[in-house]
Amino acid sequence: MSNSASQNQLALAKAGVVSEAMQAVAKAESRPAEYIREELAAGRIVIPCNIRHSSLEPIGIGRRLKTKINANIGTSSLSSCIEQELHKLAYAVKFGADTVMDLSTGGNLTATRLEIIRHSSVPIGTVPVYELACRNDETEIDFSKESILKLIQAQAEQGVDYMTIHAGIRPEQIPLAAKRKLRIVSRGGALIARHMSKNNCDNPFYDCFDEILEICAKYDVTLSLGDGMRPGCLADASDEAQFAELAELGRLGRRCREANVQVMIEGPGHIPMHEIEMNMRRQQELCDDAPFYILGPVVIDCAPGYDHITSAIGAAMGAWHGAAMLCYVTPMEHIGLPEAEDVRDGVIAYKIAAHAADIAKNIPGAQSRDDRISEARADFDWEQQFDLALDPEKAREMRKRALRHQENPAPQAQFCTMCGPKLCSMRVSKEL
Amino acid sequence: MSNSASQNQLALAKAGVVSEAMQAVAKAESRPAEYIREELAAGRIVIPCNIRHSSLEPIGIGRRLKTKINANIGTSSLSSCIEQELHKLAYAVKFGADTVMDLSTGGNLTATRLEIIRHSSVPIGTVPVYELACRNDETEIDFSKESILKLIQAQAEQGVDYMTIHAGIRPEQIPLAAKRKLRIVSRGGALIARHMSKNNCDNPFYDCFDEILEICAKYDVTLSLGDGMRPGCLADASDEAQFAELAELGRLGRRCREANVQVMIEGPGHIPMHEIEMNMRRQQELCDDAPFYILGPVVIDCAPGYDHITSAIGAAMGAWHGAAMLCYVTPMEHIGLPEAEDVRDGVIAYKIAAHAADIAKNIPGAQSRDDRISEARADFDWEQQFDLALDPEKAREMRKRALRHQENPAPQAQFCTMCGPKLCSMRVSKEL
Repeated sequence: MSNSASQNQLALAKAGVVSEAMQAVAKAESRPAEYIREELAAGRIVIPCNIRHSSLEPIGIGRRLKTKINANIGTSSLSSCIEQELHKLAYAVKFGADTVMDLSTGGNLTATRLEIIRHSSVPIGTVPVYELACRNDETEIDFSKESILKLIQAQAEQGVDYMTIHAGIRPEQIPLAAKRKLRIVSRGGALIARHMSKNNCDNPFYDCFDEILEICAKYDVTLSLGDGMRPGCLADASDEAQFAELAELGRLGRRCREANVQVMIEGPGHIPMHEIEMNMRRQQELCDDAPFYILGPVVIDCAPGYDHITSAIGAAMGAWHGAAMLCYVTPMEHIGLPEAEDVRDGVIAYKIAAHAADIAKNIPGAQSRDDRISEARADFDWEQQFDLALDPEKAREMRKRALRHQENPAPQAQFCTMCGPKLCSMRVSKEL
Repeated sequence: MSNSASQNQLALAKAGVVSEAMQAVAKAESRPAEYIREELAAGRIVIPCNIRHSSLEPIGIGRRLKTKINANIGTSSLSSCIEQELHKLAYAVKFGADTVMDLSTGGNLTATRLEIIRHSSVPIGTVPVYELACRNDETEIDFSKESILKLIQAQAEQGVDYMTIHAGIRPEQIPLAAKRKLRIVSRGGALIARHMSKNNCDNPFYDCFDEILEICAKYDVTLSLGDGMRPGCLADASDEAQFAELAELGRLGRRCREANVQVMIEGPGHIPMHEIEMNMRRQQELCDDAPFYILGPVVIDCAPGYDHITSAIGAAMGAWHGAAMLCYVTPMEHIGLPEAEDVRDGVIAYKIAAHAADIAKNIPGAQSRDDRISEARADFDWEQQFDLALDPEKAREMRKRALRHQENPAPQAQFCTMCGPKLCSMRVSKEL
């Protein structure tokens, strides 16, 4: 679908108009279009859809809709190749990513981003401060208003659907972060904090926030207010720095909606299980129930190589208690840049977390896939089980592996190699 | 350590005696020995330690102690090799399994079990009904009292530390299971239910429960009361059949403790996230807070190939809300028999779940490993990070993979390949 400049979704929703995008979301979510419009007007749903992103199929993000997941891709200074990023994009979408963020920091950023947007049917997000940092050498990032606005304007023109802007990190929070074990682990947050400290100034994104809103309203870029102060370990979770910034994000969120800019709020990070529900409630209160877009959270710090699992636990609980979108974490987290197989592992772990939350939240129809695969199990219909699996290829490969030692492997056999035919509970209980 | 026949832990605890095993548990858990004795006497902690298992290092299982995990190994009719099972045993213990169950159903069961017990420092559990079923042909399992008691006696003499006995499944529950999508998915449960249905009789394990208790008290075999009625899909979760059996397990548990037999209760299965806490509370009420030993639970049905993840989510929440031990689920669940690498994936996923729960439950000292690895991160001390990781080998391999495209890979570099040196938040925030 295509949009014209007059199609700012929030402005339309406030004016009582149901747009094509709202209709598409209503259909995908099995909800009335008017419900989507109302929630969008109230700021509880966003539909990131830059008017320039012509290949986009719009999706809705909000805690009363199906939980969405995001996959991060992107080059680094150590590894950059557009083809490889397009491969990761295709892989992420194939396995179920609802949005993709291009976090490239190496190679030709503009060309990479353009290719990703052109090839993507899902909303594309970016973190403009990365490009700012990559354009200059390490110690002299140009944080001038002109530089920031020019960059955001250029990315908006390219068709970026949502942008992470760390406008909520403020000078008074820096002493709070200094008390932490890991200080600031957000890249954007750390760069801005250093700039504020060195120059004894406020956050440059905060300073030109009104001008940023003008650009975003024009192209209908959704803002994702970044959590520069997200905790980077359990010891730093739910601390003063985190919540001081969250309150600021709530205030900025109100300014976004007033300016007809759709807005999400980003969240932690590293949070122990028993603090997750509290964190979700706090965000809803401080940020007027704007969609909460969380990274994990990982629930333990000591499993590098398995952080797609440590964080899927936190993400499932976070979405159940109110997060609207989950940013995936791959097994490579805390180690290095993810490759295509890591992207797959991360996406599937997050599809699991999102689906578990949708069932716990009683999203209409969420459990029907599970009910159908269970019926296929009862019927020993292996093909149907694979077709309904979140990752059919993996399930098929594993079944093949399980059967490889059998002399006459019968893939449709009425039992699995776990129990064998004699002890198959499914066979036995059919005789009841 | 060795035990004599007079060293029945529960009898000793009731008599006010602190045994060597209780002292060892107290030390491992950093609790007073008298506390362990009191909880054991009250039935809230068990220490599975058959007096014949001479290589055992005893552990305590209870919801106020560190969460324990079990790994299932064992042959099947399609794949049986003692060496391979010993390899799985070593692998499971190396990666952190606190107990191991030998669920063998193929090859020489007696010899396999004896070798596993002989090589194991962790408690070994079994499910005697499997051996009963394997000894005879499919339709004519010998469920006579003599056959059952002889088998349990033989396994007790071999040194089995705990046994799953499905004594709680009763004829009146079968019509309740008939309403289900997946009826009975427990192998033991299905075999016993078929026997009861065909012969119009009660559960043979229930019928000779007092005699079973005599044997178990003599060798100090802990009973793990099996949940033959555990739900096998979300649609069957938390239903009448499940809770009717749970109430029966609570009554049987009281008989165990009166007969000086330590007892755990087994639990589901497939449970959606929003019903997990309720399930844990229900067990505590119905079963006098006897240790709850749960399988998963998986929280969605549609991710075959990834059930170590779907179930780690449920296991973490279950342990947080009161489960004492978690039976692992491997990626092969619902597909086939796990091999060594599946055992590793399952064990690590469950170490993650158990550790996350211990932090959420505020088990003393649980978070110190996380705090230390976070400090190592702040210091760019990669070796220390690997040493503190739940799976150091995996973390090291992945770091090597991340560095392989670099010209001069420096494993101790002050950044990771995720951000590269310029955008490393840890470096930048050190400058604050």
